[in-house]
Amino acid sequence: MKAEIDFRPIILAGGSGTRFWPRSRRRRAKQLLALDGERTMIQQTVDRLGSLARPESLWVIANTLLSETIADQLHTLPAGQLVCEPVARNTAPAAGLAAFLIERSSPDAVLGLFPADHVIADQAKFRATIERGIALAAAGENIVALGIQPTRPETGYGYIESGEALTDDLLRVRRFTEKPNRERAEEFLSAGNYFWNSGIFLWSARTLANALREHLSETAPLLEEIAEAWGTPGFQDALRTAYPRCENISIDYAVLEPRSSKGEHHSNLYCLPADFGWNDLGSWAALYEHQLPIRGGSDGNVTDSAGALAVDARGNYVFSPDKFVALVGVHDLVVVETGDALLITTRERSQEVRRIVNELEGLREDLL
Amino acid sequence: MKAEIDFRPIILAGGSGTRFWPRSRRRRAKQLLALDGERTMIQQTVDRLGSLARPESLWVIANTLLSETIADQLHTLPAGQLVCEPVARNTAPAAGLAAFLIERSSPDAVLGLFPADHVIADQAKFRATIERGIALAAAGENIVALGIQPTRPETGYGYIESGEALTDDLLRVRRFTEKPNRERAEEFLSAGNYFWNSGIFLWSARTLANALREHLSETAPLLEEIAEAWGTPGFQDALRTAYPRCENISIDYAVLEPRSSKGEHHSNLYCLPADFGWNDLGSWAALYEHQLPIRGGSDGNVTDSAGALAVDARGNYVFSPDKFVALVGVHDLVVVETGDALLITTRERSQEVRRIVNELEGLREDLL
Repeated sequence: MKAEIDFRPIILAGGSGTRFWPRSRRRRAKQLLALDGERTMIQQTVDRLGSLARPESLWVIANTLLSETIADQLHTLPAGQLVCEPVARNTAPAAGLAAFLIERSSPDAVLGLFPADHVIADQAKFRATIERGIALAAAGENIVALGIQPTRPETGYGYIESGEALTDDLLRVRRFTEKPNRERAEEFLSAGNYFWNSGIFLWSARTLANALREHLSETAPLLEEIAEAWGTPGFQDALRTAYPRCENISIDYAVLEPRSSKGEHHSNLYCLPADFGWNDLGSWAALYEHQLPIRGGSDGNVTDSAGALAVDARGNYVFSPDKFVALVGVHDLVVVETGDALLITTRERSQEVRRIVNELEGLREDLL
Repeated sequence: MKAEIDFRPIILAGGSGTRFWPRSRRRRAKQLLALDGERTMIQQTVDRLGSLARPESLWVIANTLLSETIADQLHTLPAGQLVCEPVARNTAPAAGLAAFLIERSSPDAVLGLFPADHVIADQAKFRATIERGIALAAAGENIVALGIQPTRPETGYGYIESGEALTDDLLRVRRFTEKPNRERAEEFLSAGNYFWNSGIFLWSARTLANALREHLSETAPLLEEIAEAWGTPGFQDALRTAYPRCENISIDYAVLEPRSSKGEHHSNLYCLPADFGWNDLGSWAALYEHQLPIRGGSDGNVTDSAGALAVDARGNYVFSPDKFVALVGVHDLVVVETGDALLITTRERSQEVRRIVNELEGLREDLL
């Protein structure tokens, strides 16, 4: 990338990740787990940004329950740039706080918002796409959203509807849409101009700060108040006092959707198609599908264990790292074993592990 | 029971119990596991004989891999009465050795053969039935087989076909039959005069010894040779030399079937119907069915674990004693976790765990 652009990755690491229970816990959410490979999700997120920004340019917004583990896992991160939300307020206040913090000294810096818990297969393509997005975001008031070419009628993601194509690989954004039902998702897929919303956005600090002042007028002054206290002894107090009063809303709802209503030629919203093997790993089933081509056996089982044997068993995901796993006559199951818990479900229903987590509240806090 | 009858329970504990892998291992076969309750199967077998015979009257025939654990679990058993087969030779040589050992000093003693790994629910009825059988066996050359009233067309058991009824609850034996196919098992069930072969037999030491001399004429002298050395320094040598040369055959095949061919009025074979809640626990599925009414939840799950939650999950058996178990949308599974292994199968196919054990041979001896 060009040396003159000051790029600041903002890693949004506040997610609670109940869908990976029993591995994910309140103090060890999905982004802090090595779900895929040796490095944790947040470490992989930082690793792939390593060639785009210096470690001291990085910011991480997370929640206090995770702060110690994040500091352990990201030991090059400057302590002051790990900002811990005293309460969860979704992505708009988190991203906004970063914008106001950086705007004060570097209003032209380009901020990239990155979820901390996604898998990206092709690092070179990722780098090239982000570099392109940085250049676009650095030019004036552009807002760049990375859109993933959909490959199935997924109902678990938001979509970006694109409009005018400016070049082969840059489009205006017509609209952001919420998670669709199955029928709508199939329409989106066949229409051809819909992309999965990756949650990765690029814009200058000034552009994002101004967008918040415009679209989230009550929350923006609270965030500015916190930002002003940064680096002073009063910062934590300001954060604890003002942050809980911020609106609990995603950046998509707070800024991108209202901005898109200005019309594609007046919103400065751009969709940059991305094709770098993205997967948000939203469930145990998604992890199975991601790992199957990488480490699955010919029988379609993915077993993360100390040895395994399968007799007439297909399509199972088993995590039991220290045990030998024997499968006989079972199909499409998800079995996950930790030191204190054993989850047994199906791939189809693995999202419902959240119901277990809900039921454990108040009953067995030790397992949360 | 009458004081004058000298009763000697012979516990046949040589089974390898691969069907309860991964809990059962070569050195800790099914009979040495506390599958049902706090006491192990062999301890429960001894416990329920406690009111019928003094500890010093008891004999246990097992294999050398199990001897240490048996001695630990049955600390009142006289050391010399735990006889360890140097190689497995099925039940005829094991029972025969006991017969020849006891015949030398007490030919009129009544021997009861008891498998070490069955569950019996009603201890009082068991005691009453065995007392009746002892009295019958003490009278001359009678051979008494306990028959269980069948409740389903089970294909996993041998059957006793009864003949003439001598009283309401004593019948002559017409024939012993092997495990039937489904169609035959259904015929047996509807015929009304077939009983499950419990493996529990009563006869005097002389009667059994003579039956072996008659029906197993090559093996009987080898067993007599071993019996003669009992109590001398040469006993273990005799056992190691002669026992492997014995025929590898069950007592049913070796003695009971040929004897029954003499005809029900000449065989001295009697069937004593038994109704004391017998279950041979032949598989994880059988254990599930046995435990369901005792400790199963209203959703039909049996979970032996440190807590459990089920969401739309029914009919599962889970053994994971130190973990919290969460079941979501799964049915009729068997999941068993030990320190080094995790078995995942279905109730229907839980017998096939033997295939896993077979495959582990040579591959992972540490798991056997």
